[in-house]
Amino acid sequence: MTRPSSVPPPVTAVLDASSRWLPARLGEVENLLREATAGYGETLGADAAATLEAGGKRLRPMLVLLCAGPKADAAAVSAAAAIELVHMATLVHDDVLDAAPLRRGLPTVAATSGRDRAVATGDLLFSRAFALLAKAGEQRSVGLLADASVALAQGELAQRQDAFDLGVSEERYLARCRLKTARLFECACLLGRDDEALRSFGAGIGLAFQLLDDVLDISGPPERTGKARGTDLLDGTITLPLIEAAKSDPAIREVDLHALDAATAEQLCDRIAATGALDRVRARALEMAADAKRALDRASFDTEQRQLLGLVADGVVQRYS
Amino acid sequence: MTRPSSVPPPVTAVLDASSRWLPARLGEVENLLREATAGYGETLGADAAATLEAGGKRLRPMLVLLCAGPKADAAAVSAAAAIELVHMATLVHDDVLDAAPLRRGLPTVAATSGRDRAVATGDLLFSRAFALLAKAGEQRSVGLLADASVALAQGELAQRQDAFDLGVSEERYLARCRLKTARLFECACLLGRDDEALRSFGAGIGLAFQLLDDVLDISGPPERTGKARGTDLLDGTITLPLIEAAKSDPAIREVDLHALDAATAEQLCDRIAATGALDRVRARALEMAADAKRALDRASFDTEQRQLLGLVADGVVQRYS
Repeated sequence: MTRPSSVPPPVTAVLDASSRWLPARLGEVENLLREATAGYGETLGADAAATLEAGGKRLRPMLVLLCAGPKADAAAVSAAAAIELVHMATLVHDDVLDAAPLRRGLPTVAATSGRDRAVATGDLLFSRAFALLAKAGEQRSVGLLADASVALAQGELAQRQDAFDLGVSEERYLARCRLKTARLFECACLLGRDDEALRSFGAGIGLAFQLLDDVLDISGPPERTGKARGTDLLDGTITLPLIEAAKSDPAIREVDLHALDAATAEQLCDRIAATGALDRVRARALEMAADAKRALDRASFDTEQRQLLGLVADGVVQRYS
Repeated sequence: MTRPSSVPPPVTAVLDASSRWLPARLGEVENLLREATAGYGETLGADAAATLEAGGKRLRPMLVLLCAGPKADAAAVSAAAAIELVHMATLVHDDVLDAAPLRRGLPTVAATSGRDRAVATGDLLFSRAFALLAKAGEQRSVGLLADASVALAQGELAQRQDAFDLGVSEERYLARCRLKTARLFECACLLGRDDEALRSFGAGIGLAFQLLDDVLDISGPPERTGKARGTDLLDGTITLPLIEAAKSDPAIREVDLHALDAATAEQLCDRIAATGALDRVRARALEMAADAKRALDRASFDTEQRQLLGLVADGVVQRYS
């Protein structure tokens, strides 16, 4: 596999440490993703190519393959591509909802092609995911991915419902992150290998991933994250850094998020950072990643698999995008 | 099953003619649909209940069950519910699309405030469809429904791409209807029974259904169809009545659809009707339904099934909504 020059550091670390099977299988996943989004005419081709590019990290396919191990078969490769298609579909639909202009520094489908096409493009990616799994003939995988997709949509609904509500509790925030992020990471691991011990590992790194995402939204820097600081605040999304900051600076709860613009959102980011909340949330993310690594000991992996999965756990909390 | 009082005539005709197994199985489908949309909190509950109600005809589940026959098992009932969930998801997403800023100049308040939630609600219904099929353990069904969903999204994209383009050919229109409507009817039949002869039947009545839909958009009357005349024209959707009318009144191709309002859209409807295009399109729909019924002869159905499926074919071209 020719490694794209834009591969971000955590993924690079895993690829550097792995033996040849992992890049080979990831190359097959890329081929499936290209096939799954090709042949639908020029417009969709362009939209899908843009989404493929913006997808970037391929963390979820990597988890499927790492859990499946060096003997990962065609079904595992299909499952790895299918979960990435669901992830892509979610990104495309999220951008419709957020009317986001940029993702990873690139324009979103919603921005370039319009909201209307983005809804249909997301539906298409979603359908292709299940078509791919059906072709691979793995009934268990269909159930796992469908259930995780239900959770994703529930998380999205919860996020909309809680938007702009500064009274959202930490518990409610964590429950939303479990639905919206952790369940798909958990699903990736279980798609690779049927082992209950992987639930805690997958859910743990997924939750850590989301916490770090929410820190990066406040801390930036934009030239590393590819988006402006305070994007979540502008969308009315209440995240842990804000909840944590309000503990030492309760007046933060009085801010009118509806009235924010790009400049005042940045000021609010500075104010949140000044409370030390970012360090505290980052510390919790690191702790979750460490717990997840300990959960790995309960699964019977060989040395290379355990080491590589450990690198993924480290990677989700040491990144900028 | 208690039959809802709002069941439209074609469905009533089939229920009246069938023996007890059909209403019993349809009752089970309703239970599955309620289960699939329950337990996601109050907001979704309300949205889903509204969508369940608006779904109305349950034509696709009925096709699954009629093709499966009196021995329809739990897997057939699950498939019937799953295809209706996909149909509902499409309706919800269509509403998001049609509330796009391009439309009519005045999006309704309900449409605007509901848009973000509608994307996630559609995704949830869609995911539940596949979760239901996975639970029923029918790999073939997952593949059929996933492929039909891909076609649906492609049809939706084609419709957006061709919007406001008065040069759209009849061939392109028919290709779009095959993707957007006929494929799901075909899928319903094949979910009920693995018989290639059902492809022509399902696709034929699906296409006839869409043609009649497009006639009703022009002919109304609104008190029967439940929507204003010319809704498609206002959305920029080019349908067969318009293409057919332009053959005898070529100046129709010069109309600026972007400039239409409710009143001028009605005038354009009258102008299309004056060419006799509606009768010609209705005649083609009737012909397609008749062809579809002939295709039934190639499938080995018992007398009751053949009769009931024939009633469905008649029903799709004799209806107001």
